[in-house]
Amino acid sequence: MKITVLTLFPEMYEGFLKASIIKRIIEKGLAEVKVVNIRDYSLDKHHHVDDTPYGGGAGMLMKVDVVHRALLDNISNDYTYTLLTSPKARPLKQEDLIRLSKLDEFVIICGHYEGIDHRIEKYVDEKISIGDYILTGGELPSMVVIDGILRLLDEGISSDSLVEESFNDGLLEYPQYTRPVEYNGDRVPEVLQNGNHKEIRRYNLKMALKETMLLRPDLLEKRELSKEERELLAEIISELA
Amino acid sequence: MKITVLTLFPEMYEGFLKASIIKRIIEKGLAEVKVVNIRDYSLDKHHHVDDTPYGGGAGMLMKVDVVHRALLDNISNDYTYTLLTSPKARPLKQEDLIRLSKLDEFVIICGHYEGIDHRIEKYVDEKISIGDYILTGGELPSMVVIDGILRLLDEGISSDSLVEESFNDGLLEYPQYTRPVEYNGDRVPEVLQNGNHKEIRRYNLKMALKETMLLRPDLLEKRELSKEERELLAEIISELA
Repeated sequence: MKITVLTLFPEMYEGFLKASIIKRIIEKGLAEVKVVNIRDYSLDKHHHVDDTPYGGGAGMLMKVDVVHRALLDNISNDYTYTLLTSPKARPLKQEDLIRLSKLDEFVIICGHYEGIDHRIEKYVDEKISIGDYILTGGELPSMVVIDGILRLLDEGISSDSLVEESFNDGLLEYPQYTRPVEYNGDRVPEVLQNGNHKEIRRYNLKMALKETMLLRPDLLEKRELSKEERELLAEIISELA
Repeated sequence: MKITVLTLFPEMYEGFLKASIIKRIIEKGLAEVKVVNIRDYSLDKHHHVDDTPYGGGAGMLMKVDVVHRALLDNISNDYTYTLLTSPKARPLKQEDLIRLSKLDEFVIICGHYEGIDHRIEKYVDEKISIGDYILTGGELPSMVVIDGILRLLDEGISSDSLVEESFNDGLLEYPQYTRPVEYNGDRVPEVLQNGNHKEIRRYNLKMALKETMLLRPDLLEKRELSKEERELLAEIISELA
């Protein structure tokens, strides 16, 4: 996969691209990440990339011509998929990352300042928002998208892990424990220590349902429950009462 | 504000902390960000920080004793607010960032691998998820939280910008344009060029309503509309029909 990031702050990506998992994926040749400075595409001698908005208002906008020139110079062809970080989109979901992980190539444009001249949207296939909150720019959102996609490409995510994830499909993960068996008065639940795989599976499913019910009831509402899950939920509710 | 990050990958923060806006806020003395390597708190000679989960399952878990030791060594007192990045929370909202921006100090623990031994939650005040997607670890989420908070502390976000944001309270931002007035056949809307502030305000409000209606209808459902807004929405709908 070939990923190109267009940004005004290429130095922000240094730590991210050196980080263990991302670095390993890149070194494996599963992906190539190129970070391009949009400022290099400014034609004026002071390398201006922004200007004041028409109609007034606070802040500066990135200029459409500069960003578009950077884009044109960094796409392989007219079909290269182009993303734009923007608050103007529904928040990213795991399904979006799975869908994007199947692309051969994409470019991601990072907005900054008050945003980019609206006319850039004509050259963009998809706007990406990572959530309903305001950040200083699109750099961290672009890293979130890249991290989530590269993780899916990585064989290092063993098929076991993927099975675990789909086992919990639509539920939060159950609580997990490792050594020591007792810490500060808190013990690992007995059932997880006894090696009975049937009991462990049922206990973990019950705990996943419980975590989801208490922390993210919205996820349960969206989900079809099996007979076993309905029984376990009834148990949880009677224990809480 | 004093922020301490507990992580297994301190090198990931290098680019982020050097980035223009964040660096400026730190240099102004508005915040201090300390990045601590959890591995330094492992007592065994190989500096192990993780171990296999009880009850089986793929992947490794971070050990509760190591993480708790790192936490104890990096809080000023028992009341230091402690965050944990975790998928087990409702997704972060702007209101959360505003609330957290009022703290004097907080510690944020970044999960990695398959997560942290569940018993760590006893020592945590709040779990933070930045959205419903899976990442390689809690480092990018911690940067998102820090970026969103530091931005709010910054005087560089002028009162004008804050007025703009609250003007659009609950709506997406209206499209903005800067020079050139024509680019690739697309012109800046006439109304934004004419300097009539009353017309510009009404046009921008209409466009904010239109963007929100088309891209994030869920936001409109949650919002009380003024009489003017209802009129503008009726105009938009008749124009689209």
